Amino acid sequence: MDTARLSLNQITVNSWSLEQAVAGCERHEVGAIALWRDKIAATGLQHAARLVRDAGLRVSSVCRGGMFTDPGADPAAVLDDNRRAVEEAAELGADALVLVCGPLVDRDLPAARARVRDGVAALLPHAAAAGVRLAIEPLHPMMIGVRSVVVSLGQALDLVEELEPAHPGSLGVVVDAYHVWWDPALEQQLQRAAGKVLGYHVSDWLPATTDLLLDRGVMGDGLIDLPGLSAQVAATGFDGPVEVEVLSARWWGEDPDDVLRLVRKRFEECV
Amino acid sequence: MDTARLSLNQITVNSWSLEQAVAGCERHEVGAIALWRDKIAATGLQHAARLVRDAGLRVSSVCRGGMFTDPGADPAAVLDDNRRAVEEAAELGADALVLVCGPLVDRDLPAARARVRDGVAALLPHAAAAGVRLAIEPLHPMMIGVRSVVVSLGQALDLVEELEPAHPGSLGVVVDAYHVWWDPALEQQLQRAAGKVLGYHVSDWLPATTDLLLDRGVMGDGLIDLPGLSAQVAATGFDGPVEVEVLSARWWGEDPDDVLRLVRKRFEECV
Repeated sequence: MDTARLSLNQITVNSWSLEQAVAGCERHEVGAIALWRDKIAATGLQHAARLVRDAGLRVSSVCRGGMFTDPGADPAAVLDDNRRAVEEAAELGADALVLVCGPLVDRDLPAARARVRDGVAALLPHAAAAGVRLAIEPLHPMMIGVRSVVVSLGQALDLVEELEPAHPGSLGVVVDAYHVWWDPALEQQLQRAAGKVLGYHVSDWLPATTDLLLDRGVMGDGLIDLPGLSAQVAATGFDGPVEVEVLSARWWGEDPDDVLRLVRKRFEECV
Repeated sequence: MDTARLSLNQITVNSWSLEQAVAGCERHEVGAIALWRDKIAATGLQHAARLVRDAGLRVSSVCRGGMFTDPGADPAAVLDDNRRAVEEAAELGADALVLVCGPLVDRDLPAARARVRDGVAALLPHAAAAGVRLAIEPLHPMMIGVRSVVVSLGQALDLVEELEPAHPGSLGVVVDAYHVWWDPALEQQLQRAAGKVLGYHVSDWLPATTDLLLDRGVMGDGLIDLPGLSAQVAATGFDGPVEVEVLSARWWGEDPDDVLRLVRKRFEECV
C-alpha cells in the first residue's frame, strides 16, 4: 500500500515517548499517528496536541476508551473516564476514539456483553456532542479474559446497527487484521460494514506465535493475506490512514528507527 | 455433572502410558476414556483394545485424524493415514474419531479450508464402511497457525450439513468448551447442532492464560460457564461420555492420581 496512507500506532515503538514518536514520524515521512492515552498523559494533553499540530500529523485514533465490563466498577466512574477520553480525542482532532470494550471478569458472559452495550450507549451522546467518532474494536477471542468480550466483527457491527442510528455517523468499528483475520464470516461481515469502518490496523500473525499479547509480527512475516483484506476493507469505503500496530516484545527490543524503516518497507510491499 | 458420564481424555494425564491411564480409570472409577494415537501406537493397537475391553471402559473417542491442510502433502498419503486412524477407532470401538483439520501453512486460508472439505469428503465413505463416526472439532482461533483452520462451531456444522447427507450418521462435531465458549454465535449454533454432537469436552479458560497450547485450567478454575454450556449441549440430544481434556504444563507436573481426584471432584461440582 502507498506509504502516504501509513499511520504509526505508537505502541509499535513503545519505548519512545510521544515527543520521540512524533519526531520519528517526521524523520521517516510518516503522515499520521495513533496515540495512546498513557503516553498522552505523560506528555500532557495540550503539549501533545501542539506537537502533532506543529508536525502536521493527522491523528488516526486515540487508544483507548471502553473497559465497560467490570461488574464491580461504578458505571458513573467508567463513564467519566470515557468522557475524558472523548475530550482528549476531540482536543487532538483524532479521526476516532478506539473502544476496547473490556474483559470477562466473572463467568457471566451475556451480562458482560450487556454492560458493553449499555456503556457504549451512555457514552455515545457525549461523543456526538464533542464531534468524536467512537470505533468499537473487536479483539481476538484469546483476549476475552484480559481485554475484550467483543471478539468478532459481526458482534461489533450488531452494536453499531443497534446504537448508531440515534447518533448518525458517531459510531463505527475498527478492523484490525490481527484480531479478525481467522473469522470464516469475515468477508460477509466486511460487506455488511460498508460505511461503518473508522479504522484499519495491520500487523501479522506469526505461524508459531508464542504469546497472547506481545508476539505480533511485522506485516509479511506471518500468515495473514493482508492485500486481500486491504481490498475488502477498501470496498467498505474506508480510505483513511492505515495504522501499523505491532505489539511485540521482540520488536520493542530493537532500535525504533530500524523498526520504523522496516514498517515503511513492509507497508509498501505487504499491505 | 454425574461422574457416571466422566471420560478421561488421556492427554490430561499425559505422563501416563495407555496402560497406566486405563489402570487409573479403574482405580478412580472412571467409566470411559479417550485415547490418543501416539499412545495407542506405543502400546500396540491390539493390546490397547484388549486393555480397554478387559477394564470395561467405553472409548469416547480416538484423537485424532485430520491434518488435511498442507498444500505440500500428498493427498493420498493424508488419506492413508486417516484410514489407519479410522481402523484404529473401529478396532477400539470408539464412539467417534476426532478430526483436527490442520493449520494454515501459507497465506491462502480459503484454499486450506477447501482442502479440509475435500479431505473429510474423501475419508467419509471409508469411515461409514467401517462403522466409525467422524467428529470435526473446531479449535480456538488462536490455534489456526498450528492446528486447525476450522475455528468455530458454525464452520464445522457447515461442513457437516454439506457432507453428512451422503453418509447419514457418519459425520458430526465435537463441542470443546475451551475452543468455542467465546463465540457470540454459540447458543444459536448449538441449536442448529441438534443430533450432530458426537462429543463434548470440558476444561476451563484461565483468566490470565499464559500459553496458546498448554495452559488450560481444570473446570472451575476459569471463566467458562460450564453448567450453562452443558445444558445447551444436552439440549442437542447428546448424552454420551463427557471428556475432561486438560492440556496443561502445570497439571502435567503433578501426580496424575491427584489430578484425577481433582478432575472427578470438579466434574461433579462445576460441569
